[in-house]
Amino acid sequence: MKEEYKGTTKLYSRCTEVEAVVLANGEYPTASLPLHILESAPYVVCCDGGADEYIRQGHIPNLIIGDGDSICEENRRKYGHLLHCISEQETNDQTKAVSYLLSQGKRRIAIVGATGRREDHTLGNISLLMDYMRAGADVCTYTDYGVFIPCRNTCTLPCRPGQQVSIINFGARRLHGIGLVYPLSDFTNWWQGTLNECTGTEFTVEAEGEYLLFLNFPIEP
Amino acid sequence: MKEEYKGTTKLYSRCTEVEAVVLANGEYPTASLPLHILESAPYVVCCDGGADEYIRQGHIPNLIIGDGDSICEENRRKYGHLLHCISEQETNDQTKAVSYLLSQGKRRIAIVGATGRREDHTLGNISLLMDYMRAGADVCTYTDYGVFIPCRNTCTLPCRPGQQVSIINFGARRLHGIGLVYPLSDFTNWWQGTLNECTGTEFTVEAEGEYLLFLNFPIEP
Repeated sequence: MKEEYKGTTKLYSRCTEVEAVVLANGEYPTASLPLHILESAPYVVCCDGGADEYIRQGHIPNLIIGDGDSICEENRRKYGHLLHCISEQETNDQTKAVSYLLSQGKRRIAIVGATGRREDHTLGNISLLMDYMRAGADVCTYTDYGVFIPCRNTCTLPCRPGQQVSIINFGARRLHGIGLVYPLSDFTNWWQGTLNECTGTEFTVEAEGEYLLFLNFPIEP
Repeated sequence: MKEEYKGTTKLYSRCTEVEAVVLANGEYPTASLPLHILESAPYVVCCDGGADEYIRQGHIPNLIIGDGDSICEENRRKYGHLLHCISEQETNDQTKAVSYLLSQGKRRIAIVGATGRREDHTLGNISLLMDYMRAGADVCTYTDYGVFIPCRNTCTLPCRPGQQVSIINFGARRLHGIGLVYPLSDFTNWWQGTLNECTGTEFTVEAEGEYLLFLNFPIEP
């Protein structure tokens, strides 16, 4: 793991002491930060087929959520006792995993592997972070490129000078940034708040309401 | 190219007779449909660094849009005459490309390579389709997994039985689906309209206002 990344979970998110990691059903992480989060997790819930790759890499999940219909035959036989079936058609496996963790009192959750395949799944998985926040989870999604953090009202986060940050508005008002290169406004389209930049070692988004932050990681060597 | 795909541009979108293709700055397409669209395009605009891979694959773009700061030295020297610099900080290269095409009277536009890297870029590029539609473009974004189509009011599209479709609401009201498995409502979060399914060979979304459709392609062999 790159030296620079070592404090990153602490630096970038409120998921400092992650109680559980959800491995979603998108592309398996390749960047060192999400891999590190996955590997050092105290408790791992795999979403259905996501379990196959996790097991192939030599790990055993604590729980597998889903119908079991996208896990390979061998793993279903071998790890069937870890399979927790929730036959609820209204939500996806990522949501089932988060709901399960919340029901177990595990509130500080990191999600990995949620993006990188079908873009409609990516959109769904990212936007569901807002719902998880409303349900009381302290949750972030780590991708190969950065971290998504659902926020409500005014938030201050540590950053590096020059670090890119995108603010995707979910109906918040009176948006105002401190420590950002470009001014914020009450964005009505997703792209309007993308590709801002931090000027110092912390930044603040003043707002009334909900929005999603994306903090870009440094590019890996 | 897979036989099944041959009529796909016709089938899935209004971009039947594409006048120009924009190769954006995300991941270079790998699926046969976006590659086919790119290769059979009558006019190709590459967004800055996207030109490098296009040229490496043996093509020459009609135009390269951007600052030229992410094209390799050799291509900048060799194809500098194709570089169209627009030093406007408020928009991204994809938007500059679409605006340029509209200014040239090219309205039927397909975008490829717009997703697959940084997720904030993906979100930005996808949501900008709504702006392009408002500006008069007949535009779709083809990814490796499907096609995004910006829509206004009631739209009917051809499909295959069982084809997955996601509806991402951009403020439309009175949403109602015909030929879809799950009922629509006035979705307020992106994920709510994802992963619906077509029942027959066409479907209709009745609505007042704007929304984005995603039609999933069949999985390639």
